[in-house]
Amino acid sequence: MTVRLGVTGATGRMGREVIAAATSHVDCEVVFAVNRNPTDEAVDGIEIESASEFDSLLVDREPTVVIDFTGPESAVEYAEGCADAGVAFVTGTTGFDDDGREALEAASEDVAVLHAPNFARGVQALLNVVGEAVRNLPGYDVELVETHHNAKRDAPSGTANRLLSEIEANGNFTERTHGRDGEAPREEGEIGVHALRAGDITGEHEILLAGNHEEVRLTHRAEDRGVFAAGAVDAAIWIAGQKAGSYDFADVIAE
Amino acid sequence: MTVRLGVTGATGRMGREVIAAATSHVDCEVVFAVNRNPTDEAVDGIEIESASEFDSLLVDREPTVVIDFTGPESAVEYAEGCADAGVAFVTGTTGFDDDGREALEAASEDVAVLHAPNFARGVQALLNVVGEAVRNLPGYDVELVETHHNAKRDAPSGTANRLLSEIEANGNFTERTHGRDGEAPREEGEIGVHALRAGDITGEHEILLAGNHEEVRLTHRAEDRGVFAAGAVDAAIWIAGQKAGSYDFADVIAE
Amino acid sequence: MTVRLGVTGATGRMGREVIAAATSHVDCEVVFAVNRNPTDEAVDGIEIESASEFDSLLVDREPTVVIDFTGPESAVEYAEGCADAGVAFVTGTTGFDDDGREALEAASEDVAVLHAPNFARGVQALLNVVGEAVRNLPGYDVELVETHHNAKRDAPSGTANRLLSEIEANGNFTERTHGRDGEAPREEGEIGVHALRAGDITGEHEILLAGNHEEVRLTHRAEDRGVFAAGAVDAAIWIAGQKAGSYDFADVIAE
Amino acid sequence: MTVRLGVTGATGRMGREVIAAATSHVDCEVVFAVNRNPTDEAVDGIEIESASEFDSLLVDREPTVVIDFTGPESAVEYAEGCADAGVAFVTGTTGFDDDGREALEAASEDVAVLHAPNFARGVQALLNVVGEAVRNLPGYDVELVETHHNAKRDAPSGTANRLLSEIEANGNFTERTHGRDGEAPREEGEIGVHALRAGDITGEHEILLAGNHEEVRLTHRAEDRGVFAAGAVDAAIWIAGQKAGSYDFADVIAE
Repeated sequence: MTVRLGVTGATGRMGREVIAAATSHVDCEVVFAVNRNPTDEAVDGIEIESASEFDSLLVDREPTVVIDFTGPESAVEYAEGCADAGVAFVTGTTGFDDDGREALEAASEDVAVLHAPNFARGVQALLNVVGEAVRNLPGYDVELVETHHNAKRDAPSGTANRLLSEIEANGNFTERTHGRDGEAPREEGEIGVHALRAGDITGEHEILLAGNHEEVRLTHRAEDRGVFAAGAVDAAIWIAGQKAGSYDFADVIAE
Repeated sequence: MTVRLGVTGATGRMGREVIAAATSHVDCEVVFAVNRNPTDEAVDGIEIESASEFDSLLVDREPTVVIDFTGPESAVEYAEGCADAGVAFVTGTTGFDDDGREALEAASEDVAVLHAPNFARGVQALLNVVGEAVRNLPGYDVELVETHHNAKRDAPSGTANRLLSEIEANGNFTERTHGRDGEAPREEGEIGVHALRAGDITGEHEILLAGNHEEVRLTHRAEDRGVFAAGAVDAAIWIAGQKAGSYDFADVIAE
Repeated sequence: MTVRLGVTGATGRMGREVIAAATSHVDCEVVFAVNRNPTDEAVDGIEIESASEFDSLLVDREPTVVIDFTGPESAVEYAEGCADAGVAFVTGTTGFDDDGREALEAASEDVAVLHAPNFARGVQALLNVVGEAVRNLPGYDVELVETHHNAKRDAPSGTANRLLSEIEANGNFTERTHGRDGEAPREEGEIGVHALRAGDITGEHEILLAGNHEEVRLTHRAEDRGVFAAGAVDAAIWIAGQKAGSYDFADVIAE
Repeated sequence: MTVRLGVTGATGRMGREVIAAATSHVDCEVVFAVNRNPTDEAVDGIEIESASEFDSLLVDREPTVVIDFTGPESAVEYAEGCADAGVAFVTGTTGFDDDGREALEAASEDVAVLHAPNFARGVQALLNVVGEAVRNLPGYDVELVETHHNAKRDAPSGTANRLLSEIEANGNFTERTHGRDGEAPREEGEIGVHALRAGDITGEHEILLAGNHEEVRLTHRAEDRGVFAAGAVDAAIWIAGQKAGSYDFADVIAE
């Protein structure tokens, strides 16, 4: 059964990637795409319509799921529209405040809602195994290296922080160290966190566990934004069969 | 409580490493070390005695565990001596035939016996997580690269084969390919297996999972033989508290 | 001074990348873009015109350089048009036969012509340093690993072959080995060549030199096709100031 | 012709490695080994004599070269003894003050003296090529990652600093940044320097150059201290044929 998708933020960087991923996926089709500021230029053959038409498009085109990468206010409005229309909602939008999160929660009482900060399946896989690796190697030193393009302004990355939380939940770690210079001996319980910024690198994360004359490295690398779009489409196809409720990307992978 | 160790094959490469690892470990002490051809030269301050004294040393020095890296015939004799004396037995010897395996099994009715082809804790950690990673990334291509010193004659390594079995048990893989040259398109279900041989590299294994615009890499590297000795000592300390039976290295890690 | 560019094969994968790279580069502008089968859809705001208009566009729009990623027959026609019009010609087209190469050579008597199989500056940098690394490490074992997406049908890659030629020109190597399985001891003078095929990886090449308890690795990775387009644009800007003759990408880097 | 070697600091960590490397090298033999505090235990079959016998051993055993890994005061005394006896001197001792350096310089008027902070041939190879790589990739971002065992107290490593100097001499770099945390955008001309400390890793250095949708990585890894001993022995064999003067390890590699 083909899953019918609506796409918001359709002319943004992630919206375009979602349309590209969805139109090339055999199990779904894009039945509409909207943007606040629609353009005449189609995206991968999909006409861009005005966001003001969103509610009537939900009725007319009968999507099963809407995929949203916009801003927190827009996302809440789209979620509420979907809840009213009985359409599932997948969002990778970030930056929700408490009100926003509550609104998503409320929508999830009517329809299936999935919110994820990162739709890379491989990141989820790493999150799923890093804890066991840490538990298997007690007393080993842990260092994390993350590498991103030179325009990224904050450090460490959100994904690095999620990996660090998972590591810390599975071992005796007391401190994160960002950079060593001069007299800087390694302290017991310290995790070294290193943020490289260079070129156009989409995103790479490496966890090093070393001790006992050996090293284990767990590494993830995103080639380009396509990985996040592909994961969002996977999530949409998965959520099409779910009942109302709040989901995250780990649920998709667990199947 | 300090674990009292006997060491066999004490002047061999692994025997020396075991003595070094054990004498520097706070929780154990070496109470004797034997070799078929004893030498006058002590190893890390431990006197080397004749293998012909093994049975009387078991009685006089009261070891809790014997660690053995010798050959399959010697190992069986040492195991039988330990079974008679009520001393646990940890062996990393390889190449046992059916008779040898049966003899180890028989010894394990009287005492705790642990036999492992590889005492690197990190290899065990990788074996423990690779299956979940493969299940989390269905349809991703898998390639394995293993790198060893230039004197290794066989390929792929035993550890590579164990990793491959674990990968295959968790996904739809039908074939292992060793090398591509000329017209060599990747086939569905194929795992590429690549054996690099170079310099003095003790051993490195990398599993690459790629698909969907992303890559996950799981890598293990042994710095030197010390890792195997350290793992054998860990195993000996662990087995000191176990009842008679047959164990492997995964049991040590699971604690 | 802004370099005025014409682009051929404008709706192909590389043509689109060239237009994207050129329109975002401060030192050049795209004055026309042609394709055999023109479409109504503009590429990055550049109108696509018919290849049949090529000769008159050379006159009317006065480009300084044409960048071409098409097929060998088309490329020869475009080169001849450029030679007649006094416009420099940069081509990344592959698969020329002897006649094609002679036609490019003939064109280079009238205008500057640059032909390169790979416009990644980093590949050229690696080609420029690998020889010295090999000479500095006599007797070290060399292995080459190249990784590409799972749709690449041939192995090893053209870039791998160029790196191998450079390595062989600087050391005593007698044989390339593609894959080791079973009893496969490393032979003196052997270079191991390993072709990984997985996922969507654009292209990675790694040269390992190991011996004497140490390893040197020289690695190149292309993030996406943009690197080749960017290199072609760099080459076009460079060639704008050159006199008639035949050039390759190493000349661009050498400046 | 076999080169006759004397070894100082013979029971120290590096002294032992030098004896191991020299006794297994076909082109040299160890004719004496001394230590301030001699022990009864031989090292690889070589008897350890008292440092007080050094001058008479130079006469009686007729070494061609002495290899020294001791402390700065001892090294100066040994160098002066060698200068008097007409024996070449190779030292990897660090921490010389101005007086010490002058004393080595004075010795080099009588005999060939080679002083090097790092005898890894691969490090020298990297130093020899990194400048060209940087010049070939103008405007690319540079980051350096160095990884050492968890007992190393200072950062970055001496080898990292030498690589950084070489990089800076070949590009427009204005600043070294050690660690990024929080709002930390990459600045023009910045080199990120990252010191990982973990486990027993002997030493790894990686230079990343990224830009233009591509990456080049140049990496060195020492397996163990044996690499430094092997390099010192190579240097001793090389210097055996040189006239009086001051040399460094790059001279050995250049041949």
